[in-house]
Amino acid sequence: MSFNLLKGKRGIIFGALDENSIAWKTAETVHAEGGTFVLTNAPIAMRMGKIDELAKKTGATIVPADATSEEDLDNLVAKSMEILGGKIDFVLHAIGMSVNVRKGRSYTDQKYDFTAKGWDVSALSFHKVLQSLYKADAMNEWGSIVALTYMAAQRTFPDYNDMADNKAYLESIARSFGYFFGKEKKVRVNTISQSPTPTTAGQGVKGFNSFINYAEKMSPLGNATAQDCAEYTVTLFSDYTKKVTMQNLFHDGGFSTTGVSQEVVDNFSE
Amino acid sequence: MSFNLLKGKRGIIFGALDENSIAWKTAETVHAEGGTFVLTNAPIAMRMGKIDELAKKTGATIVPADATSEEDLDNLVAKSMEILGGKIDFVLHAIGMSVNVRKGRSYTDQKYDFTAKGWDVSALSFHKVLQSLYKADAMNEWGSIVALTYMAAQRTFPDYNDMADNKAYLESIARSFGYFFGKEKKVRVNTISQSPTPTTAGQGVKGFNSFINYAEKMSPLGNATAQDCAEYTVTLFSDYTKKVTMQNLFHDGGFSTTGVSQEVVDNFSE
Amino acid sequence: MSFNLLKGKRGIIFGALDENSIAWKTAETVHAEGGTFVLTNAPIAMRMGKIDELAKKTGATIVPADATSEEDLDNLVAKSMEILGGKIDFVLHAIGMSVNVRKGRSYTDQKYDFTAKGWDVSALSFHKVLQSLYKADAMNEWGSIVALTYMAAQRTFPDYNDMADNKAYLESIARSFGYFFGKEKKVRVNTISQSPTPTTAGQGVKGFNSFINYAEKMSPLGNATAQDCAEYTVTLFSDYTKKVTMQNLFHDGGFSTTGVSQEVVDNFSE
Amino acid sequence: MSFNLLKGKRGIIFGALDENSIAWKTAETVHAEGGTFVLTNAPIAMRMGKIDELAKKTGATIVPADATSEEDLDNLVAKSMEILGGKIDFVLHAIGMSVNVRKGRSYTDQKYDFTAKGWDVSALSFHKVLQSLYKADAMNEWGSIVALTYMAAQRTFPDYNDMADNKAYLESIARSFGYFFGKEKKVRVNTISQSPTPTTAGQGVKGFNSFINYAEKMSPLGNATAQDCAEYTVTLFSDYTKKVTMQNLFHDGGFSTTGVSQEVVDNFSE
Repeated sequence: MSFNLLKGKRGIIFGALDENSIAWKTAETVHAEGGTFVLTNAPIAMRMGKIDELAKKTGATIVPADATSEEDLDNLVAKSMEILGGKIDFVLHAIGMSVNVRKGRSYTDQKYDFTAKGWDVSALSFHKVLQSLYKADAMNEWGSIVALTYMAAQRTFPDYNDMADNKAYLESIARSFGYFFGKEKKVRVNTISQSPTPTTAGQGVKGFNSFINYAEKMSPLGNATAQDCAEYTVTLFSDYTKKVTMQNLFHDGGFSTTGVSQEVVDNFSE
Repeated sequence: MSFNLLKGKRGIIFGALDENSIAWKTAETVHAEGGTFVLTNAPIAMRMGKIDELAKKTGATIVPADATSEEDLDNLVAKSMEILGGKIDFVLHAIGMSVNVRKGRSYTDQKYDFTAKGWDVSALSFHKVLQSLYKADAMNEWGSIVALTYMAAQRTFPDYNDMADNKAYLESIARSFGYFFGKEKKVRVNTISQSPTPTTAGQGVKGFNSFINYAEKMSPLGNATAQDCAEYTVTLFSDYTKKVTMQNLFHDGGFSTTGVSQEVVDNFSE
Repeated sequence: MSFNLLKGKRGIIFGALDENSIAWKTAETVHAEGGTFVLTNAPIAMRMGKIDELAKKTGATIVPADATSEEDLDNLVAKSMEILGGKIDFVLHAIGMSVNVRKGRSYTDQKYDFTAKGWDVSALSFHKVLQSLYKADAMNEWGSIVALTYMAAQRTFPDYNDMADNKAYLESIARSFGYFFGKEKKVRVNTISQSPTPTTAGQGVKGFNSFINYAEKMSPLGNATAQDCAEYTVTLFSDYTKKVTMQNLFHDGGFSTTGVSQEVVDNFSE
Repeated sequence: MSFNLLKGKRGIIFGALDENSIAWKTAETVHAEGGTFVLTNAPIAMRMGKIDELAKKTGATIVPADATSEEDLDNLVAKSMEILGGKIDFVLHAIGMSVNVRKGRSYTDQKYDFTAKGWDVSALSFHKVLQSLYKADAMNEWGSIVALTYMAAQRTFPDYNDMADNKAYLESIARSFGYFFGKEKKVRVNTISQSPTPTTAGQGVKGFNSFINYAEKMSPLGNATAQDCAEYTVTLFSDYTKKVTMQNLFHDGGFSTTGVSQEVVDNFSE
């Protein structure tokens, strides 16, 4: 499917690691829709992934940036405008990582240095990206900024750990900064709250397969895939959604508004 | 437990059928807390239940009223003030019934006469109660009105049928009328969104036991019982909650903010 | 703007009255995007409006239907498939009317015959449309159904009257029916919660201009127009949003997540 | 008003600075209701305030603690059980401070060292308190923990700055930790989302008076005062609300569910 929806639009895509990443699928889909963009990731993530392959496929330039570093982000924003030949129309923030999860610390036994690091990478980085763009006046009017989030920000999933709190902070940034970006620059800022997705990162989480299975059975249309998410993101980058801002948009096959599905409750008969 | 929290307060309690009813437990608890009240129910429900027993126990007078009849409600309000010796401080609306459910019609095969009847009884009756009280200027300042609801108003439970839509309408009435009752009369109006509760009515619903079981496992503190609900309602009738209004208050052991519990997701491993 | 996003898609559009209607703008925009459709409205609304003009412009056939009549709706669905040559891909429900508002009855002084009529037209009609489509198995897989709503379903606006409660019921139908339509037919059902819009109907409401003005100042991107809404609706009808269902989507320039704007609060300094 | 509702209950109250503090009013009210407690605050806040006066009035012991220090908190928890003679029944977290606000940095021009400090004090401190209590197994079954928050976590108020994001994180902690505290210890964790309150801290915020005035006009019952909040908190500490957990409870005279009040919209007529 391609309708050239993003023809002439320029952007920055954070967080493509490998072909399981939502950011990867988004880059491919945006490219198919006629958009041009800079790809960026943290130097360490770049070494682990295959972003070069993606850049080649999509005609993108790579500009490495640690999304917790204001200096790196200022450089990224400046370089991106230079490379793309103008101001930015769209940005995807798809970054998240919990050190507590990686180190096997439970939610009730956090090491707060880990918590702070995870918050900086997963949540505050979004503010840093927005502030860099805002200060450089780098966004075109009616541009669109999207960050990926998860419903753990509203309801607890025991294994999601401190990422729940990080996502709540991230979603709040979208509203808070969205107010100023809307008023001052006519730019929209939203988050997509995506189904659990078997990315390379996600698969590492304990109990992830059971959870994906449960979510599939709870969602009337099934879980949304990474490719589904890429396509939905394209609508938010397009000119069809100019007045949608400061929203957290559930993209989850109906999970969020399903109290229980028949298939799930049938497991609990006696 | 009793602290005389409602000493000197007068009220009307709708919907006590038998000792499984939340309204029944509320009447007992309000009585223990020093409140006096009129009990009311539809003539037909009164024949099926044992409301006389409750009236005796709690020193209450019974005034029958069909909650869909403005005339009955106007009479109830007038009589209640006469019997209780003054204006009303608290009201509990605990009325709900779906003809589609009773007749075995699924949500996608409604008979609309049934739907209209269920809406009138379960949802519009709340507006009628409020309008009767409002027009008669029957509420004391800082009085409190509570209606019982269920989370199906926010998320779909397949067997809850058109009661979901009725509860959404009911909750909206609480906000809409709460605005005017607040501004004009300093009266608060709220809904309590209660755990699934094995009342005599509830137990008739298909798959109810599986659902109770599921909800119990999903709720970190377990399902709230009818007695728990009665106690919570007392706080909303008391003078400790004067500035809480137009709210839908989840009373559910944490169900509403639990994405999934460990016990539930463990059923979906492979 | 046109990308042929709806090429080959067939639909039914309810509620186009005149060129101020959101449904009118949607019909024009869907036509520009390559979709074909049947236009429908109640016989009385058709006499008042200029739907013939719209039909001519967009190559649409008109099939009159009273949206409260099951018979009319069953006929509409059957005729539409015949006229369009296949099953339906998209449906827009844009119908609403409060008799209490028209007759100048305030929210606290409702005439319940009026309330029932308004509920039937504004809320239950959506269930009737869905049930007709469902029973006739008239929707294509991955089809999309949208109804228009307003934020009064979540927060009270004093002049919106019983339409608030009707919209809450309507949004609940979208979730409840969306569950079954998703599970059984892979069809999505959503509501768009649109900025106040100066339609011919809306303009009749008391205090409407002040309210539009207020909403404009509260919304960081300004109020969404009828044309903006038409464009957003196109994304929901397109194949880019296949996994979005059972959602209420705010399309309001950020009003819903703005606590207060600087311009508004500045009115309240002393 | 006093009903001895908290007789025999032991607790810890954070954040009482002076008689304008919500925590101060809560301490007085809890004392009147028969509860005993330890008062705590950061050493620096203690020097600025008059907590000694409050301790004398309420028979409380003061244990200073920096709520960002795990060591201080572990000490506080241990000492409190010793002083009070048993496990803890209730805790109030009323701590918040934005360095960006204090230093006059706008939301779009944050200094991230300030942001991190504010997050640690205002949001993460709540996790640290909970983790200290949890690890020491210091809470009695059916104990109750409350943190104060503000609606900026859901909707943007331009001058609330990064406190909005901190409150979103805090509310998420209540849900996330509430899940584990509920499951493992039968303890409830909630947040109260309070009307804007003219505390000594609040009054420093730019435009605070206009905002209080606006909120007063928007709230059908008027703004909730610090004393109102103290009384509401007592219900959450009492045994009447045992099944309320993981909730964010609006205590705001109806502000949160009022789209606009008549008084406010009347400012925008032309």
